Amino acid sequence: MTLETGTIRGELRPQIESVLPAVDGGRFAVKRCTDESLVVTAIAYTDGHDRIGCTLLYRGPGEHEWHETPMRSLGNDRWEAQFSPSALGVHEYTVEAWLDPFASWQADMARRSDPDDILALELQAGAELLLEASKHAPASDAARLRACAGQLTADIPLRSRIAIALQDDLAALARRGIDPALRVRYRATLPLVAEPPIARFAAWYEFFPRSARADGQHATFDDAYRMLEYAARLGFDVVYLPPIHPIGETHRKGKNNTPAAEPDDVGSPWAIGSKDGGHTAVNPRLGSLEDFDRFVDRAHELGLRVALDIAFQCSPDHPLVAAHPEWFRQRPDGSIRYAENPPKRYEDIVPFDFSCADWQGLWKVLRDIILFWVERGVHILRVDNPHTKSLAFWEWCIADIRSRYPDVVFLAEAFTRPAVLEGLAMRGFSQSYTYFTWRNTSVELEEYLTELTQTSVREYLRPNLWPNTPDILHEYLQTGGRPAFMARLVLAATLGASYGIYGPAFELCEAAPAAPGSEEYLNSEKYQLRTWDLDAPWSLADLITRVNAIRRAHAALQFDHGLRFHGSDNDQLICYSKASPDGTDVILVVVNLDPHNRQAGHVDLDLSQLGVDAEQPYQVHDLLGDGRYRWIGPRNYVELEPGASHIFVPRSRLRTEQDFDYFV
Amino acid sequence: MTLETGTIRGELRPQIESVLPAVDGGRFAVKRCTDESLVVTAIAYTDGHDRIGCTLLYRGPGEHEWHETPMRSLGNDRWEAQFSPSALGVHEYTVEAWLDPFASWQADMARRSDPDDILALELQAGAELLLEASKHAPASDAARLRACAGQLTADIPLRSRIAIALQDDLAALARRGIDPALRVRYRATLPLVAEPPIARFAAWYEFFPRSARADGQHATFDDAYRMLEYAARLGFDVVYLPPIHPIGETHRKGKNNTPAAEPDDVGSPWAIGSKDGGHTAVNPRLGSLEDFDRFVDRAHELGLRVALDIAFQCSPDHPLVAAHPEWFRQRPDGSIRYAENPPKRYEDIVPFDFSCADWQGLWKVLRDIILFWVERGVHILRVDNPHTKSLAFWEWCIADIRSRYPDVVFLAEAFTRPAVLEGLAMRGFSQSYTYFTWRNTSVELEEYLTELTQTSVREYLRPNLWPNTPDILHEYLQTGGRPAFMARLVLAATLGASYGIYGPAFELCEAAPAAPGSEEYLNSEKYQLRTWDLDAPWSLADLITRVNAIRRAHAALQFDHGLRFHGSDNDQLICYSKASPDGTDVILVVVNLDPHNRQAGHVDLDLSQLGVDAEQPYQVHDLLGDGRYRWIGPRNYVELEPGASHIFVPRSRLRTEQDFDYFV
Repeated sequence: MTLETGTIRGELRPQIESVLPAVDGGRFAVKRCTDESLVVTAIAYTDGHDRIGCTLLYRGPGEHEWHETPMRSLGNDRWEAQFSPSALGVHEYTVEAWLDPFASWQADMARRSDPDDILALELQAGAELLLEASKHAPASDAARLRACAGQLTADIPLRSRIAIALQDDLAALARRGIDPALRVRYRATLPLVAEPPIARFAAWYEFFPRSARADGQHATFDDAYRMLEYAARLGFDVVYLPPIHPIGETHRKGKNNTPAAEPDDVGSPWAIGSKDGGHTAVNPRLGSLEDFDRFVDRAHELGLRVALDIAFQCSPDHPLVAAHPEWFRQRPDGSIRYAENPPKRYEDIVPFDFSCADWQGLWKVLRDIILFWVERGVHILRVDNPHTKSLAFWEWCIADIRSRYPDVVFLAEAFTRPAVLEGLAMRGFSQSYTYFTWRNTSVELEEYLTELTQTSVREYLRPNLWPNTPDILHEYLQTGGRPAFMARLVLAATLGASYGIYGPAFELCEAAPAAPGSEEYLNSEKYQLRTWDLDAPWSLADLITRVNAIRRAHAALQFDHGLRFHGSDNDQLICYSKASPDGTDVILVVVNLDPHNRQAGHVDLDLSQLGVDAEQPYQVHDLLGDGRYRWIGPRNYVELEPGASHIFVPRSRLRTEQDFDYFV
Repeated sequence: MTLETGTIRGELRPQIESVLPAVDGGRFAVKRCTDESLVVTAIAYTDGHDRIGCTLLYRGPGEHEWHETPMRSLGNDRWEAQFSPSALGVHEYTVEAWLDPFASWQADMARRSDPDDILALELQAGAELLLEASKHAPASDAARLRACAGQLTADIPLRSRIAIALQDDLAALARRGIDPALRVRYRATLPLVAEPPIARFAAWYEFFPRSARADGQHATFDDAYRMLEYAARLGFDVVYLPPIHPIGETHRKGKNNTPAAEPDDVGSPWAIGSKDGGHTAVNPRLGSLEDFDRFVDRAHELGLRVALDIAFQCSPDHPLVAAHPEWFRQRPDGSIRYAENPPKRYEDIVPFDFSCADWQGLWKVLRDIILFWVERGVHILRVDNPHTKSLAFWEWCIADIRSRYPDVVFLAEAFTRPAVLEGLAMRGFSQSYTYFTWRNTSVELEEYLTELTQTSVREYLRPNLWPNTPDILHEYLQTGGRPAFMARLVLAATLGASYGIYGPAFELCEAAPAAPGSEEYLNSEKYQLRTWDLDAPWSLADLITRVNAIRRAHAALQFDHGLRFHGSDNDQLICYSKASPDGTDVILVVVNLDPHNRQAGHVDLDLSQLGVDAEQPYQVHDLLGDGRYRWIGPRNYVELEPGASHIFVPRSRLRTEQDFDYFV
């Protein structure tokens, strides 16, 4: 290391470290939505006791010039500022620091107890700093800086000159003349991806359109309008359809996943492709592409968004299997390998080989499949088993789609190990299914949701909480009856800004497993048509409608970072609050996790999280049951029937006699 | 992002993230000594259920080829391996991962329940993998791989071929034929600096050589031999001398920091430089350079290392002030600025301007000053106030010195804010003074030492714990009498692998402050000669000798990462253990923090840290008092007089009647 190479610049004294948030040191992007801001912190300091300034730099997609915002000191050399993404897409941010020589001089000057001749010399030094600043300041400021410099050395009494030198706004003026060449830039430029708010906040409703008829016949998109109207009435934001493509016939699975289908069996929608086409075709039994387009239009009229399932795998009958056998794994005899994880075999499905010799050709075709649907107006995509496909593919593909359509939202069905789930999120997925489905006790829920919302994971992974899916009927639901479904609905919808249910199985409390110990549904819709009585008296439609309305009315429930858990002396009563980013909206939730018994106990609230005064009574208004309770202090009694919850709005300022007009 | 640029390689499926430890993402080096190893962890995985392998790569200074060591799986996609630095200086490490196709195939094969014709095809596929491996394997392995491939497809019974295919060592053999082009390298190469063990483990003794005479006269290096012998007898490893250079006369400080010196006042050694020379000269009253060289030789004969003080500042009389006024800050009238932090003025000292126009010229001269002493055999340097000098200078200077003399140890006297203290450590200082001096209660000590030894700070900051310095006589010592000094000695020497005292003030329990509320010593040696009665009956020399002997005998006390705190029901009794890296040596310490009262209570031990069986009695042997106690379980009674401590060796396996020869 020599001094002459220019890699070291002795005139640059400030140091910048640990600009956060940063995902794996800036290798991956931080995620925010366009209705959020990003709070950036840094450590910056210089040697000695000179003052420094610190600036956050950021720019949006396509911008070359940086925007700047001053960072404020948090003490101990930590600095903070925030910015809001200006548009959808990739933003960049970094930090600059610079010595603030006039402010340093001013601070010293204010504390000097030197003889007058020294003070006069110091005033001259201050004047020189102002003149130096005038060289780099905007023209209008430069004139004033020169004028002030003149005053500091003018033939007026020393005390008057000192008073001028110490003027509050003079340091700010001089700061506008910091030499840009003396600003130190942090070593990395960090990326942020800005997405639409629906990437964070939405209630999802999954259903099989083919089961939309009440008469047991295979339904069409047209038939499924009633499901759109139903989902809209219940207050959902997104309807998500399992694959809508032609279904293969070779090795088609029968009802209840039997290896051989009966002639009238409809097959699994995830066995994609037949003589009728592949991933860009529609199952003729559902209708035509045009029927699908009208279905999407109808959804939009109802205020719903349609999400499709991207399942990059084929039935053996998929046109690509014959056209491009080189894109699939083959046995030595040239036969195409079906999916397997010995001893399990999935003979109705053949996986792509993402690292085949022609991976570039394959990847582009897969990207074009997504583009096909995006261009038809489907900008929300649920990706099936992304962890069994190349992570490099997803990173490239999502970035490529986003460069064309930056509003497209990708949900990863990454039911796999934590590192892979998180790795997929880092590589671009907007949001992820989580382990919520398997977290049913208060300890599990608190630990897991705290990890998701209060650690660095939250910078890149947005959770989407599902109490059930067509693949997962948890034992808690199997054995807990209707109260279990009620509790899980409230948990999902209030713990997660994004949540979803697979219906109508969910709201109708469908609870029978395929076999004891299995998480598969009996008579699963994956393999057969079902008819659902949407008006069944035990349906949770009313509760869901109410909860979704509360979500729309309360910003607190539309964000995840404001989640905090509160104490409870009864493990069956989980208690947590959510606050909106600006803190103006707060919701407090208590859920009875025991689906079999009434539970009572005391919750122990962190009142600072609720924005209520610990010394004053406050009211909690239950938006679910409409009850109102007057509480005081952190410890309060709660009693809930099986399946019951409170969704409280705490209100701090209760009227007292002192509010009465004539009190004084 | 296009697929054709070559930045994406579709054939590379493994992903590597979070290789740790890494200081600020690899911007700075991790620190280890040559008697330590570095444990490296990484997250690595691939899509799907294929197996991967993971390798730690590392190389020492000057090495171009990488050494490799396999990483072992810790589960959940975490991997771990370790390496030991091969030499002093900068090492590099990174991680590679690769698909292990034959091991994946073998694992599948072992679980297959396919028909025989499929199994035969699979064997053929396995044979193809072995043949592929043979292309990249060493010649000797290649032949065996081809032979095995032949056996898998030979005309022998299917079951025999499967048995051959599933041989345990075949996957390891195939692994030696992984195509190097298919290995994925982590995105960063991380640096490690290896230093000599004395950078981590040493007992330091600071004294003013000029006070080494018993008759009150100014002592010489020759006079100070008795201090070397004394320090060696007490078991110290390093003697550290305040600056030994000529002392300025202009604005020389008098006794007790009075602004004007009397004619016979000796001045502060930190006001460096006079007509007799500057930083490369020796104060004539101490002797000549040759006298100093002999002093160093004498120290080495006694097994001591000499540390000098690098204080980069000048008295106004320093030759460089006249020769290079452009290296100092000047007032508008051309006068040189003395050091100040208004309203405080340090008129006997002028600071260098590290960012002056000729900073390159200045930096090289300062570097050469260090080289001058290093070349005279002083390879341990204590740096005065490094935080008031350019951090870029230190980063460059330390790296430059290390590139020539990689064993040089730098101790930073960085008594400043945490970010700057840590920033200096990141930039190369081997070790740092800490806030230990101001941490005197059990809560403070536990919190601070846990931060230093159990968080990522430990990767780059080595603490050196000092209960006192010539600048700091803490109130605890001022008011606690001899027991306070005893407690602080044991704390420093057992909490820190490196510790130091400023003596003889420390062991003679010098406790009078310059003024009430001040941490300065009354009649401070910084400004005047002192005479010390080393044989005073209240001296702690015996305790220090014993503690230093224990440190040398017990590896547990020579490392810091093995520190763990244990519970105590009495806040005045602090309890902690240290274990050597290999776990074979364990020390348990209990200190009475109350210098005024006997304290008793129960300690609550984490027995797993002590390596003792929770179900069996164990013995603790007090190396200080030589007492032996038979304990069982975690909770045990302790009672200590003011100033008293236990330094226990726990011994797990006590003899019982079953050990008696004739028991059975």
